[in-house]
Amino acid sequence: MTERIREFLRNRHEDGPCMVLDLEVVQDNYMKFARALPNTRVFYAVKANPAPEVLSLLAKLGSCFDAASVAEVQLVLAAGATAERISFGNTIKKERDILRALELGVRLFAVDCEAEVEKIARAAREAGIDKREVKVFCRILCDCAGAEWPLSRKFGCVPEMAVEVLEHAYRLGLEAYGVSFHVGSQQRNTGAWDVALASASRIFRECAERGIHLSMVNLGGGFPTKYLKSVPAVQSYGEAIFRGLTKHFGNRIPETIIEPGRGMVGNAGAIEAEVVLVSRKSKDEDEVRWVYLDIGKFGGLAETMDESIRYPIRTEHDRDRKAPCVLAGPTCDSADVLYEKEPYMLPVSLEIGDKVLIEGTGAYTTTYSAVAFNGFPPLKSYVI
Amino acid sequence: MTERIREFLRNRHEDGPCMVLDLEVVQDNYMKFARALPNTRVFYAVKANPAPEVLSLLAKLGSCFDAASVAEVQLVLAAGATAERISFGNTIKKERDILRALELGVRLFAVDCEAEVEKIARAAREAGIDKREVKVFCRILCDCAGAEWPLSRKFGCVPEMAVEVLEHAYRLGLEAYGVSFHVGSQQRNTGAWDVALASASRIFRECAERGIHLSMVNLGGGFPTKYLKSVPAVQSYGEAIFRGLTKHFGNRIPETIIEPGRGMVGNAGAIEAEVVLVSRKSKDEDEVRWVYLDIGKFGGLAETMDESIRYPIRTEHDRDRKAPCVLAGPTCDSADVLYEKEPYMLPVSLEIGDKVLIEGTGAYTTTYSAVAFNGFPPLKSYVI
Repeated sequence: MTERIREFLRNRHEDGPCMVLDLEVVQDNYMKFARALPNTRVFYAVKANPAPEVLSLLAKLGSCFDAASVAEVQLVLAAGATAERISFGNTIKKERDILRALELGVRLFAVDCEAEVEKIARAAREAGIDKREVKVFCRILCDCAGAEWPLSRKFGCVPEMAVEVLEHAYRLGLEAYGVSFHVGSQQRNTGAWDVALASASRIFRECAERGIHLSMVNLGGGFPTKYLKSVPAVQSYGEAIFRGLTKHFGNRIPETIIEPGRGMVGNAGAIEAEVVLVSRKSKDEDEVRWVYLDIGKFGGLAETMDESIRYPIRTEHDRDRKAPCVLAGPTCDSADVLYEKEPYMLPVSLEIGDKVLIEGTGAYTTTYSAVAFNGFPPLKSYVI
Repeated sequence: MTERIREFLRNRHEDGPCMVLDLEVVQDNYMKFARALPNTRVFYAVKANPAPEVLSLLAKLGSCFDAASVAEVQLVLAAGATAERISFGNTIKKERDILRALELGVRLFAVDCEAEVEKIARAAREAGIDKREVKVFCRILCDCAGAEWPLSRKFGCVPEMAVEVLEHAYRLGLEAYGVSFHVGSQQRNTGAWDVALASASRIFRECAERGIHLSMVNLGGGFPTKYLKSVPAVQSYGEAIFRGLTKHFGNRIPETIIEPGRGMVGNAGAIEAEVVLVSRKSKDEDEVRWVYLDIGKFGGLAETMDESIRYPIRTEHDRDRKAPCVLAGPTCDSADVLYEKEPYMLPVSLEIGDKVLIEGTGAYTTTYSAVAFNGFPPLKSYVI
């Protein structure tokens, strides 16, 4: 929460919740990543917050970009970055979208199975592009122990299969470029990269035995934002990763990539919301209060799903006594509850009409928000 | 799935998923509700699908409307219904939104606590409206046994408190109009209304003892759509509700309201989607397949949350052998998985590029869809 955001909000008089993002914090985060991992290229995960101002700033700072769709590729190009700075990092792509990305100049693609490799080879042929110029990296499954939000098995394959997927790419004439993994979102254990780097180095060796020389390890994202608990500094992630690389690759350290999303923009944004109602379900004063805000799960706070992410919430009464409450959104949807299993501590003096600030909301909020659920408009966003 | 929808889809050549809604089915559903509960006014829950064509059709058929926000009130007015046919059914409202609704002519409001009653009284005074013309009904908590999607405790208060809330409304000069409840979404037990009607009749009696004569019971929604399991016919809901009313209110049956949403439009819509990828996580052929569609949790299928709603899915290979698969959406979000805990049976011959039809998707899909998550556009919708 920066003074610039506070200043902006003091001068805002519109109705409805909004997210304000401070570009100075984004710049600071980028510099920290660049310093902590000086030999690693930073690919910002555009999906975390695709605001044009964020993309232009990062493009100017020299960042590369991890795009999840053709639309994101186009946003990055519009922000002034060239196509060779873009990775199409989604392992699930329509063949016609791969073709469009190739036509837009993208040459770096994620895969996790042979079918996806074949799509890329066919699309390159159709686009009349030399397949040796098209690089693919294979995502592997990875233990997410230590992550606040461990990932599902949706992306990646087992390491043994990755060798075959990369060989398949090689046989089809593409460049078998490397390996990627993701240690889980909001990863607080800096050692988590070690196990994954061990797998990656085994894949490098097994590919080399087949005559295929990989060059790159994509270290993924997972770099945390500070919510309620404190998190290690970026520098300590850099050191742990460098130790892992040295341990598993010796003096043949590969090219590396990181894909921070949350870690780049999460702490740069704050949402201002309003208390719509404070009530109890019975006259029993011991029963927990319900506090309803004008933003909820469908208005941008989807990451409260299963109460995974607990955002810090500031009010104007934070010096008063606090008591637990169930926190919910404004829609007529019974699932639109933010924190209930573990109630949230808020001041007992909090009242209808009060403003609250939900911090650490620069990532995965604005674009998650529903089009018009219950008639409520999507979350407004300001980049300052 | 109607022939008209099939015909429409045969002639569609655009890219991307879409939802097609057949108005003839909506009309048929409305007539079934009207016939099954001839003395009950139907308030369509606009949030289920606010498409202007749906609202105009229902307005012409004589339906009333349950609105969750001022934006929904405006949609209903634009569709040609007058304000006295609108209920502002959200128990969580900003005072200035109540004021706007009053100015637009709405006179019927849901509440579940005294603070909300006070907002309505203040707003009526500010709008210069005679408070006796403004009706409030109090929502009570209700056991959701039998519902496929039981509701949280988000809406409603315990019945004993409802008496005090209604008395508070009465003292402030508003019309204490009645009681509402919701027996849980996708309620397959027609007897579920009985328990709630018993509570409602107790509230009527206790209010009468305080000199307050309630007139209305809002029976809520919960009427199911047929997904994979069969559901009772609307007629049997009507009969069960009528029995409950007679049992608990004797020969003084109150005015009644129902608020079908899913039951009105769910089975009128189908989503056409495309298989983007079929893959396995290892070379082990016994391992479950992953099937990735171009629509997922963030593209309109949010109700697959916790795998609550299992939609029927048709493919062009339905005569072939089926095998379990994990079904997932196209985004780079690891939570964007539709069915995994209980894998979904799909034909083994299903291939990349195949179209699939997701049935029963006329309700709670289009407006749930995210603005631009991962760069994917919101779900397209066609009403025919």
